[in-house]
Amino acid sequence: MKALAAVALSLAAAAYAVPAAAQFEKAEDAIKYRQSALFVMGQHFGRIGAMANGKAPFDAKAAQENADIVAQLAKLPWAGFGPGTDKGRETRAKPEIWTEHAKFRELADNLGAETVKLAAAAKTGDLGKLKAAFGETAKSCKACHDNYRNK
Amino acid sequence: MKALAAVALSLAAAAYAVPAAAQFEKAEDAIKYRQSALFVMGQHFGRIGAMANGKAPFDAKAAQENADIVAQLAKLPWAGFGPGTDKGRETRAKPEIWTEHAKFRELADNLGAETVKLAAAAKTGDLGKLKAAFGETAKSCKACHDNYRNK
Repeated sequence: MKALAAVALSLAAAAYAVPAAAQFEKAEDAIKYRQSALFVMGQHFGRIGAMANGKAPFDAKAAQENADIVAQLAKLPWAGFGPGTDKGRETRAKPEIWTEHAKFRELADNLGAETVKLAAAAKTGDLGKLKAAFGETAKSCKACHDNYRNK
Repeated sequence: MKALAAVALSLAAAAYAVPAAAQFEKAEDAIKYRQSALFVMGQHFGRIGAMANGKAPFDAKAAQENADIVAQLAKLPWAGFGPGTDKGRETRAKPEIWTEHAKFRELADNLGAETVKLAAAAKTGDLGKLKAAFGETAKSCKACHDNYRNK
């Protein structure tokens, strides 16, 4: 658990290492960046979901590869939600993201921590553990979407 | 160099671990996936370029973080170029991608190898090495764009 916590901490630190405002030329790029990172992450997460839900055969190696990618990608999108990036390209991001920054960031950090656990679960090769970790990670996605994403 | 080669090999293996056709529900998703992965990679690569070209101050830690992300992301887009993904969403991908598969794949593998070297160069904290590796990686991007991307 200590190792996990350390990884989660380093992920969170990496995600916020550089001020968001300095990272993108324009708001449009920041929005496209976060949407792109979330889309790629969603594709890989969905493959784990298909295995967890019995819609695809369980392939321990593929699950591990996908979970590792998810854990890496989960660090990225948040830098794309910097000040002034509420507009500039079509987006479902709710304005509350920029007024409830601490809460939004907490949910982002939660996702980071859950994806680290997901990758650890995938590494065990145990489908039961993968299912449980997938469920917890999916809850973490949903918590943020329910609060901060328009339908 | 042996360690580098081993990493490059494992990256290439990971990139082709699962048949592309099985990975996406529809061609549109595959196209969006590869575009998204390339866009996110391009953003991080651009930050290294800004340092390499003197447009941003050299920050060794940021360079290393960005290069690590680039090396991870460079593995992903190629699965999105599977059979039948030449159409389905607006794309600049040329049809030759699907008729010159071996050549396209070689260029993709080259990029993977160059990004691994870029990450190793960034790790040294030496701006000169970073500049050289950035230049080689950029050439690798351009080789593929010149051959396989419409303007």
